[in-house]
Amino acid sequence: MSTVDLNSDVGEAFGAWSGGPDRELAPMLTSVNIACGAFAGDPSTIRRTCELAVEHDCVIGAQVGYPDLLGFGRRFIDMGPADLTDSVILQLGGLQAFAALVDRRVRYVKPHGALYNAIVTHEVQALAVVDAVRLVDPSLAVLGLPGSVVQAACESAGIRFVREGFADRRYTPTGVLVPRGEPDAVITDASAAASHAVRLAQDGIESICVHSDTPGAPAILTAVARELSAAGFSARSFLA
Amino acid sequence: MSTVDLNSDVGEAFGAWSGGPDRELAPMLTSVNIACGAFAGDPSTIRRTCELAVEHDCVIGAQVGYPDLLGFGRRFIDMGPADLTDSVILQLGGLQAFAALVDRRVRYVKPHGALYNAIVTHEVQALAVVDAVRLVDPSLAVLGLPGSVVQAACESAGIRFVREGFADRRYTPTGVLVPRGEPDAVITDASAAASHAVRLAQDGIESICVHSDTPGAPAILTAVARELSAAGFSARSFLA
Amino acid sequence: MSTVDLNSDVGEAFGAWSGGPDRELAPMLTSVNIACGAFAGDPSTIRRTCELAVEHDCVIGAQVGYPDLLGFGRRFIDMGPADLTDSVILQLGGLQAFAALVDRRVRYVKPHGALYNAIVTHEVQALAVVDAVRLVDPSLAVLGLPGSVVQAACESAGIRFVREGFADRRYTPTGVLVPRGEPDAVITDASAAASHAVRLAQDGIESICVHSDTPGAPAILTAVARELSAAGFSARSFLA
Amino acid sequence: MSTVDLNSDVGEAFGAWSGGPDRELAPMLTSVNIACGAFAGDPSTIRRTCELAVEHDCVIGAQVGYPDLLGFGRRFIDMGPADLTDSVILQLGGLQAFAALVDRRVRYVKPHGALYNAIVTHEVQALAVVDAVRLVDPSLAVLGLPGSVVQAACESAGIRFVREGFADRRYTPTGVLVPRGEPDAVITDASAAASHAVRLAQDGIESICVHSDTPGAPAILTAVARELSAAGFSARSFLA
Repeated sequence: MSTVDLNSDVGEAFGAWSGGPDRELAPMLTSVNIACGAFAGDPSTIRRTCELAVEHDCVIGAQVGYPDLLGFGRRFIDMGPADLTDSVILQLGGLQAFAALVDRRVRYVKPHGALYNAIVTHEVQALAVVDAVRLVDPSLAVLGLPGSVVQAACESAGIRFVREGFADRRYTPTGVLVPRGEPDAVITDASAAASHAVRLAQDGIESICVHSDTPGAPAILTAVARELSAAGFSARSFLA
Repeated sequence: MSTVDLNSDVGEAFGAWSGGPDRELAPMLTSVNIACGAFAGDPSTIRRTCELAVEHDCVIGAQVGYPDLLGFGRRFIDMGPADLTDSVILQLGGLQAFAALVDRRVRYVKPHGALYNAIVTHEVQALAVVDAVRLVDPSLAVLGLPGSVVQAACESAGIRFVREGFADRRYTPTGVLVPRGEPDAVITDASAAASHAVRLAQDGIESICVHSDTPGAPAILTAVARELSAAGFSARSFLA
Repeated sequence: MSTVDLNSDVGEAFGAWSGGPDRELAPMLTSVNIACGAFAGDPSTIRRTCELAVEHDCVIGAQVGYPDLLGFGRRFIDMGPADLTDSVILQLGGLQAFAALVDRRVRYVKPHGALYNAIVTHEVQALAVVDAVRLVDPSLAVLGLPGSVVQAACESAGIRFVREGFADRRYTPTGVLVPRGEPDAVITDASAAASHAVRLAQDGIESICVHSDTPGAPAILTAVARELSAAGFSARSFLA
Repeated sequence: MSTVDLNSDVGEAFGAWSGGPDRELAPMLTSVNIACGAFAGDPSTIRRTCELAVEHDCVIGAQVGYPDLLGFGRRFIDMGPADLTDSVILQLGGLQAFAALVDRRVRYVKPHGALYNAIVTHEVQALAVVDAVRLVDPSLAVLGLPGSVVQAACESAGIRFVREGFADRRYTPTGVLVPRGEPDAVITDASAAASHAVRLAQDGIESICVHSDTPGAPAILTAVARELSAAGFSARSFLA
């Protein structure tokens, strides 16, 4: 039987504002991408989300993004490479401290939102992210879009790159995500997302993401996990 | 010959705004309290300040404070203990990542500004800070005011407490700092600060601070170091 | 028939994070306290909330608070009076610009969260808030707790003070709010809140608040409005 | 005799961090572009800078920019037009409140940093800025680069556009600013800046800027004012 990783962006609360249905999603996930405070995630949320990861035996990854709470990391910021590298290092360091409290280590990095999309093509920023990973812990994996410049940058630097696909997002014919501003960007129908996930897995995607803030995320993830299993894919971390 | 530690608050820049004369101070310091982003300190400043510490062989400490850039950590915030503990953990984790880049470890914690003053008497917040230290790394020392509740909290928790005094700040008869709002709070005369430092060292203070944002800080620190030496105290980290 | 104002704290979103059920509440409200960006409220939310106010013919008030997004304005900050006055002026000015876009004026100020509670007794901060009101527009009313120092400060300054009560919050025997940290601080039972509101109105309260973030706020407000009406109080702005 | 406006970006402090030498510059300026809190400028700084403007009889303009304190508004943010419009409205509203305290009105808008450069060519963001101006006060002028899309947008909307040039910045052959990252971007030699300013005035520039954070800004502005006067240009607001 083949395996596929199931990840979700979690810990996206901030202060009094709540994030997604992390508690419903975590039992079905194998990896959790924890927001580290730059675009979402306050200290107490980071701590609780690490505890949730342990409770459900999920691998802990750092969801790193542009420092932009107001924009939730979903708008491109033209940061210079040194600033971006250092921002990612700070985000990683903060999460590492909380992961250590629950006797875990951060094992991978998942760029978030506009940064995820930027480093599909923006070589300078892609190298800046990979530099941060290399400097902090070269054993960290990086999740990203297959064929992206960040994939090439990881491979040049000897960093493991994990091919990721989104069950709940549509892709353009050239293989990038349909921007969130467009009407059909997000797949909210659970069975459509599940079929999409199966195709992604069959195409060699190693980790499948369901966004925690997609409406109906728990139902979508339930359907995704069930259909993947029916298609012969068991949910398992890409590190296992 | 006796020894005394010389520390200063450094890395207090933020983005385009510069901090104090760190480059002039560092050669005379044995310990540097690096701001970690909560009240001052952006990622690139933290990195450069860690590099400066290594260049001058200073011990790296985390200067932790209330999350309040606008107030520079100098106004009391009535944070609950869990929020405060978690904020300190995040600050420590970020600095640890940058310290590791220069092959150093964070060795102590110095509370900043209003937090420093609060935990002289505020038991709940003092315990919250000490909890963060204990959880992240119980081998960290904590710098603070002798006789404070944070000293007692450290001793109960088995955390090393380092008695600190300020060369450039006046004390009230009861041994706390004259508040910054009052006219004679800060000692800006270099020779007065130097005499004050000698008295502090003779009274058993283990680490003497000169604030990097006191006007004339490099001249003050020069005088402090010279007079301490003349009085038989060599500058040396409290960890040496 | 007597009248009573019904207000709620609205516009408490921030970026991607949503606030309370403003659209459900607005049709039943006579006044809306709009967050101005210091502890909640981003520019686009402020604009939309002003539009909502016009749609339902609600009087627009400025919900001003400590500049503390992470703490949602719910923790005391020991701001000096000049800083507090200027912060309130900035908050007011921002809201005034959006109110003008919908051909309305800001008509009152409602301090939020920890600031609301602080100025029950903290004279310096109470005077600072009233100073901001006096400087920006002395025709603004101020909502607050009857018997508070802010009431006295308003009366001295010739600012109209409006006696406010909370349908969904319990009071201590001395007439201040039970702190949110305590188990029975919030009344979530709709009929209990409604009875409470009727008593408040009978005791001479001019404006009754239901918090938009109290669970079940629309049902509570529905019950409150119905019971007030049954008791002979029609909902009407305190300015009408 | 011809006239030319002399403006500078002022009020660029934040909390404990100071801005440029505003007090030295203001006596020589005819217009001041006051930062409004998005990328620099805290409430008390805004207030004091408005007072400084009155003291030296300078026209008050709003220096609006991307909401990015960490980046000082100097990095492009891909904000959507509604968010950008609303951000500019909030910035304008805050400044208007402080201008009113000193019996002045905000008379113009000067986009700052990366926003200034973006709207030379970025039509959507240029229209968004002009929309904010039109909605808040269509009698406001807008300062910008001659030939920019923001000039065209102003003219279409019936907003006065003021042709601005920078004494202390080099231009490319195509008439845009040499980016700050490049070595010769900033002119720090006072006499070179003065000659540059004279050429700009002779080319029909209506307002000449000297950045307050250019090293030696007071000496540069002194030289600029003297050479302009020698060349027959008296310093006078473009509104006079």
